[in-house]
Amino acid sequence: MIDAILRGDRVALGRALTLVESQRPDHRQQADTLLAACLPHAGKSVRVAITGTPGVGKSTFIESFGQYLIRSQERRVAVLAIDPSSRVSRGSILGDKTRMQTLSALPEAFIRPSPAGDTLGGVARRTRDSIILVEAAGFDTVMIETVGVGQSETAAHAMTDVFMLLLQPGAGDDLQGIKRGIVELADILVVNKADGANKVLATQAARAYKTALHMVRARNDQWTPPVLAASALENLGLDAVWGAIDQFVQHRQALGVFQSNRTEQTVSGFTGSLPTLLLELLQTHPLYAGQMDALKQAVAAGLITWQQAARQLLDVCTQMP
Amino acid sequence: MIDAILRGDRVALGRALTLVESQRPDHRQQADTLLAACLPHAGKSVRVAITGTPGVGKSTFIESFGQYLIRSQERRVAVLAIDPSSRVSRGSILGDKTRMQTLSALPEAFIRPSPAGDTLGGVARRTRDSIILVEAAGFDTVMIETVGVGQSETAAHAMTDVFMLLLQPGAGDDLQGIKRGIVELADILVVNKADGANKVLATQAARAYKTALHMVRARNDQWTPPVLAASALENLGLDAVWGAIDQFVQHRQALGVFQSNRTEQTVSGFTGSLPTLLLELLQTHPLYAGQMDALKQAVAAGLITWQQAARQLLDVCTQMP
Repeated sequence: MIDAILRGDRVALGRALTLVESQRPDHRQQADTLLAACLPHAGKSVRVAITGTPGVGKSTFIESFGQYLIRSQERRVAVLAIDPSSRVSRGSILGDKTRMQTLSALPEAFIRPSPAGDTLGGVARRTRDSIILVEAAGFDTVMIETVGVGQSETAAHAMTDVFMLLLQPGAGDDLQGIKRGIVELADILVVNKADGANKVLATQAARAYKTALHMVRARNDQWTPPVLAASALENLGLDAVWGAIDQFVQHRQALGVFQSNRTEQTVSGFTGSLPTLLLELLQTHPLYAGQMDALKQAVAAGLITWQQAARQLLDVCTQMP
Repeated sequence: MIDAILRGDRVALGRALTLVESQRPDHRQQADTLLAACLPHAGKSVRVAITGTPGVGKSTFIESFGQYLIRSQERRVAVLAIDPSSRVSRGSILGDKTRMQTLSALPEAFIRPSPAGDTLGGVARRTRDSIILVEAAGFDTVMIETVGVGQSETAAHAMTDVFMLLLQPGAGDDLQGIKRGIVELADILVVNKADGANKVLATQAARAYKTALHMVRARNDQWTPPVLAASALENLGLDAVWGAIDQFVQHRQALGVFQSNRTEQTVSGFTGSLPTLLLELLQTHPLYAGQMDALKQAVAAGLITWQQAARQLLDVCTQMP
């Protein structure tokens, strides 16, 4: 399976992602082995977060932009997603098979809906693991789509090199109710739907956003986020968007912060996930489930403290079975 | 120290709370021993969450209501708080020594600012531990004050028997921008500041809130949350507030849900805290810090996966030193 992934076998990659997304302890152990084998082959892509309020046209943009990257830039494009709500709505992002139909049919593209999960942290961690797998499979451009309505943007920002914010044409200078904190994260802003009668509107909007951005505090990497107009429908402006991504990456590399940013992302992601990782390790122990049942009863009856229960679980589940 | 706490010694109780709030591993081990010793003596209080938007007069209300409970109902009153922002603002809740001055001087009262913490989860867990300690010290009424601006209400709701929402007089039927979800949690609503010229306004507001509450979906415990008017300033209506608390507790006990609710709170609190508790246990190991430094470096360099690092940490820190 590892060899197949490294060869870029899409079926093997799909199965590996399913393992990584699974919450079953035995799947997790297999997933950990896979991830360890893929890690040395990962890291060679540009990771781009693509976010924006619902309705801004993220999936249509990715459909067009992905095809442009494959056909004009000879990139191999993987599209992943972070959507903590997908457990309820069963894959609201990218889950609809009719979306990105043309892109997903291309051999140089790989599209995966958001993993399900109880918490944003869990969903985000599985997406991070997925990045390792798709990179090991040779995809050199990884796009992370977010729902754009909450904290998933922050999670996407914490695992990408470039943070791209899509905007609507015809908006005022109020930035469409996008949270100021999200605007401050944006490295590149794209006014989407700059097609047909919207073209003038989109240019005006781009200008308004540029002005509004002056209100946002200066960055410490000497980068002025460009505001571009693009049409996913008419395939316009996509070269400028790619140009901006490329330029930003080169700018960050020249500054020496591209790699250090990734390193920081990895370390803080690891320390933040550590409590859950530890619990997941204990869950692979055959005595875990029985112990937990007994401990919950003892805690419920007020016989032992949470700390004592945790200690007992740790003692039992770290002994050889 | 344990004997002193059980005798109700306030100095010992204060020290015990400091241990419980500490993030130092050696303090935590002592705190765990203390909590285990106190647990059999805990659970004999009424736990009341007191929340409301900033400016509604929570601390003035607690100051008056606490004195009323001590003087007229012979209760012993402990006041705790949940304020995740207190790390930044250094104890915005109850931290100001000039607040609740009269109440805090009474031997039957014990007032403690919010523990500091990085996360709401951490702050909430320390407040839960504090409940065990103050109950063991003989306080039979525990009030949990929240900042009333975020998720700390949900955390307070998850550790109390009664959820009380304070409201302003003179508000319309818009419920003053209080989130609908918070209103739905409320067992008792109190229009505060029903004093002087505000009296008529407060009565009108109480009526408006009652009407608005009809819009909120029916509860599954056959309880209609009363809307009361009270004046912390003039000590009016406090007996009705206590009467409502008492009535609610009896109602829930008669239904058989008072104790089962506490049990559920304890179990879900335990499972939710488990990942952090496990990490805290490993942190007490003498090799933890050194291991973590090495593992962070290996993770940063892409030499090992997060899962491998977690496994190694678990292996090292569960072996006898």
